[in-house]
Amino acid sequence: MFKQLGLIGCGLMGGSFALALKRAGMVRSVVGYSKSPSTTERARKLGVIDIEASSALQAVSGSDVVLLAVPVAATEATLKAIRHLVTRDILVMDVGSTKRDVVDAARRSLKEQVGSFVPCHPMAGKESSGVEHADADLYQGRQVIITPIERTLVAQLKKAQQAWEAVGGVVVKMAPDAHDAAIAAVSHLPHLLAFAYMNGIAGQSGADDFLALAGPGFRDFSRIAASDPTMWRDILLANKTELLAQSRKFRESLTALEALVAAGNGEGLATQIRQAREVREPWRMGGT
Amino acid sequence: MFKQLGLIGCGLMGGSFALALKRAGMVRSVVGYSKSPSTTERARKLGVIDIEASSALQAVSGSDVVLLAVPVAATEATLKAIRHLVTRDILVMDVGSTKRDVVDAARRSLKEQVGSFVPCHPMAGKESSGVEHADADLYQGRQVIITPIERTLVAQLKKAQQAWEAVGGVVVKMAPDAHDAAIAAVSHLPHLLAFAYMNGIAGQSGADDFLALAGPGFRDFSRIAASDPTMWRDILLANKTELLAQSRKFRESLTALEALVAAGNGEGLATQIRQAREVREPWRMGGT
Repeated sequence: MFKQLGLIGCGLMGGSFALALKRAGMVRSVVGYSKSPSTTERARKLGVIDIEASSALQAVSGSDVVLLAVPVAATEATLKAIRHLVTRDILVMDVGSTKRDVVDAARRSLKEQVGSFVPCHPMAGKESSGVEHADADLYQGRQVIITPIERTLVAQLKKAQQAWEAVGGVVVKMAPDAHDAAIAAVSHLPHLLAFAYMNGIAGQSGADDFLALAGPGFRDFSRIAASDPTMWRDILLANKTELLAQSRKFRESLTALEALVAAGNGEGLATQIRQAREVREPWRMGGT
Repeated sequence: MFKQLGLIGCGLMGGSFALALKRAGMVRSVVGYSKSPSTTERARKLGVIDIEASSALQAVSGSDVVLLAVPVAATEATLKAIRHLVTRDILVMDVGSTKRDVVDAARRSLKEQVGSFVPCHPMAGKESSGVEHADADLYQGRQVIITPIERTLVAQLKKAQQAWEAVGGVVVKMAPDAHDAAIAAVSHLPHLLAFAYMNGIAGQSGADDFLALAGPGFRDFSRIAASDPTMWRDILLANKTELLAQSRKFRESLTALEALVAAGNGEGLATQIRQAREVREPWRMGGT
């Protein structure tokens, strides 16, 4: 269906997309570019891309589909670097975990060609990053959120959906703001809380003794506190408004629970815990 | 080594201890009592206990080792019910997840016989409770915290240690207050935060849409929010002072992180996240 994929950012996310799209027979060749030439070279040697490009713009040249798989903070600069080659015949997508800021960046950079850009957030990942870990199955069965705006071209939107479905994704459409609020609630806030929790322990003199006694509850609750600092700095800052709004709601709940504990109000406390359990217990990943 | 185990509370924890102690050849017979006669009967039919007792006191009669495996809120009433048969020749232990309140209850109830009581907290459990799930391997390789006080008899302390080692536990000794602070930090606070987090989401109109997008990070972070409400109400109230102290430290960390996010201070934020990662990343269950 596509002639050439221009891949900007040959890491885990981008590399996996290229492998999966080729396996699905949806693209003939892949031209790849990464900021670090050694990454681009490795991607070619691993068969993730077919041709090395020496700039983002060169990766777009001759491509009818372009995937930006760069850190979310680099989106605007990348769009600016390629904008002269973005026409209404090209589909440009990203994989960023925030969408309001990406949409704003796309409007500013692409101007009248913003309709060719389809903002995407595939809900997939791995503990290990880098092109070495690229995996054609990464998107299999995972939700891919697409957040079109009023100027998005229907033809590009349809192509984007087909591409993600071809790599195994389950496409969900929503507005950029709704996406950012939802992701703040179920992903960004848990990370913020896990970081705060670990730092609260780290600052205490008994920290090592405490941690020696920690069990499976701690293990699961705090796992995401070991996430990549640079990536999460960018994500939390990119979604700051929604994140802080969610954090305020969390604080209200925590204050209510603390007050019940302090007052020794067993009945009220059990009611609150029961509510938490009733929301969490039936939840299953990928919807019910 | 022991003649008879008096088991008060034939649930998962107590039943598993009885099975494991018998399997180790450390006890000849087990007399069991549960508040609900049908539980006691089921425990006997399952071979977890040998003889049904009709009261806690009857379970202690003729026993040289007694395990209280009742909800932490029922500890004092149970000790009062058995105190007339507690002599310096009996070892009495509990399995409660807080120790300061248990030690205080033991002083009040057992008075001059408090030396026979050895406060214990085996760090083991399962998602499923009840005698049906009793398992002789439950304590295998798990830490068992023993918190003796100055009046604890050395002979009973030694026997307690041998009993827990016989069932596969790894014994750690510490002061009751140190135990409560540590457990507040690594177990009770994460539960409080997970409950608050779920309630913060539950109170929002978009909650269902949010949860439909949640992934593996959410799954692990919020797992403990589905814990048993009655049990956790009791645990949080029993350790209220230490829990609220830990929650204050958490709030300080969260406030600091929020301020960095609000100010768009990427460098400061990355430093904080890096610190959280450096504490969490090398952690392994059961110590390093």
